[in-house]
Amino acid sequence: MSPDHGELLYEGKAKRIYATDHPDQVLVEYKNDATAFNAQKKAQLADKGRLNCQISARLFELLEGQGVPSHYLGLAGDTWMLVQRVEVIPLEVVLRNIATGSLCRQTPIAEGTPINPALLDLYYKDDDLGDPLLTEARVRLLGLVDDARQSAIEQLARRINGVLQPFFDGLELQLVDFKLELGLNKAGELLLADEISPDTCRFWDQRSSDTNDRILDKDRFRKDLGGVMEAYGEVLKRVHTACPNPRNCL
Amino acid sequence: MSPDHGELLYEGKAKRIYATDHPDQVLVEYKNDATAFNAQKKAQLADKGRLNCQISARLFELLEGQGVPSHYLGLAGDTWMLVQRVEVIPLEVVLRNIATGSLCRQTPIAEGTPINPALLDLYYKDDDLGDPLLTEARVRLLGLVDDARQSAIEQLARRINGVLQPFFDGLELQLVDFKLELGLNKAGELLLADEISPDTCRFWDQRSSDTNDRILDKDRFRKDLGGVMEAYGEVLKRVHTACPNPRNCL
Ligand SMILES: Nc1ncnc2c1ncn2[C@@H]1O[C@H](COP(=O)(O)OP(=O)(O)O)[C@@H](O)[C@H]1O
Ligand SMILES: Nc1ncnc2c1ncn2[C@@H]1O[C@H](COP(=O)(O)OP(=O)(O)O)[C@@H](O)[C@H]1O
Ligand SMILES: [Mg+2]
Ligand SMILES: [Mg+2]
Repeated sequence: MSPDHGELLYEGKAKRIYATDHPDQVLVEYKNDATAFNAQKKAQLADKGRLNCQISARLFELLEGQGVPSHYLGLAGDTWMLVQRVEVIPLEVVLRNIATGSLCRQTPIAEGTPINPALLDLYYKDDDLGDPLLTEARVRLLGLVDDARQSAIEQLARRINGVLQPFFDGLELQLVDFKLELGLNKAGELLLADEISPDTCRFWDQRSSDTNDRILDKDRFRKDLGGVMEAYGEVLKRVHTACPNPRNCL
Repeated sequence: MSPDHGELLYEGKAKRIYATDHPDQVLVEYKNDATAFNAQKKAQLADKGRLNCQISARLFELLEGQGVPSHYLGLAGDTWMLVQRVEVIPLEVVLRNIATGSLCRQTPIAEGTPINPALLDLYYKDDDLGDPLLTEARVRLLGLVDDARQSAIEQLARRINGVLQPFFDGLELQLVDFKLELGLNKAGELLLADEISPDTCRFWDQRSSDTNDRILDKDRFRKDLGGVMEAYGEVLKRVHTACPNPRNCL
């Protein structure tokens, strides 16, 4: 069931953004489309939209309770949420608590190495360029953000990690790494935007010691491990025990 | 003709390093081997070793005259130079005065865009990993250099650019970008090491406006433009007019 909505403003790989009656608010619809490797690998995964939407809503509320400003206003259906419209900063902010993935392909750091304090990597959000890694000097050269804004982004990202890492630890899930997108609302406030879900985080199940079985995120899809939606469902189940009643704003 | 030398200590893609009677000095032999794309493309280019050795020697002496400390001690033959033995820091320090190559593939910056002040990029010197770009945070995480050393490296690299860019400009060559390797001698001094040649610099001939004809560096080999050694020879010819008599240390 979809809520009343205005025109489709943007369709991305995983979500659709719709206008509402309020110019500063948009509706986000989470899709069942799964993509990996810059959309070279694609599939439809039944129920993914609902799982990611429901996980994201609960995490945004958790963060709100800890004073982290986000675009989230409330759920608007199983696969829908109402959010503040923001101008998304074209940076993917990645925090890494444990080394895996591209970090291990690009450095001699061994898979599974704990990283403390977390490593913060910035990528340029541009599918055509393949979301390339940016140095601070390249961020500056591209004029994407100034020094003060970049400090604020880094601070907010680390605060989010400071909330999420112990939260997931309490659920026996290791928050290996995750990607954030940030944006500016009409008032110019820096907000956490986009989503926080198994599509954008890596979770390792502390209840399993098998290096494949423990994976409860999009790596199951990337690596063809099967049981992708079961894994996402398990993440929602655990998150739900801690945050059972996300608000509905309709 | 090769000078008296001790055992082969290391053979790289472009040079061989030999021991001498003096433990703090090594002989560098410049080879005719050309490689590109992390040695996926290979060729033998007659006379390359001599051209690169002779160009490098003159540039090291030019820099020495401007107070830039390097490993260079003197020529020891057409394709040989005597240098201080250093522990090479496993960073490739790239300075970019004009955007081209990987920078343009990894960012929306257009080919040929002037960059002022120059962009400094650090890469991890590791052929197996494909010399990946490093952020400052990754440099720190890998423990490659500390903050003070990194500042010293950056300062030295910018000083070198400050000498080389106007020097080549006077020879009607645009110094588009170049890669440096730095090392520490036994006394712990930071020295410019390795080579400075058309293998490690990009030069555009200001006497030509054709975007292919103007290329006087390894890009001729990478892009199969032909006339590779003629281009290197032209660089030596111009460098030689400014620095005609590099010292011979034998
Ligand atoms: N609050 C918001 N306001 C406007 N755009 C947003 C907001 N939150 C996320 N977006 C953007 O919505 C788009 C759709 O999301 P998604 O399908 O994940 O896209 P993508 O294919 O770029 O990853 C993304 O470009 C994302 O940055
Ligand atoms: N003064 C020096 N002392 C010791 N090693 C050096 C010195 N200058 C350069 N080297 C090293 O010599 C090696 C041979 O050079 P090269 O053939 O270009 O190697 P590569 O294949 O690593 O590029 C490189 O590893 C380089 O870092
Ligand atoms: Mg997305
Ligand atoms: Mg080399």
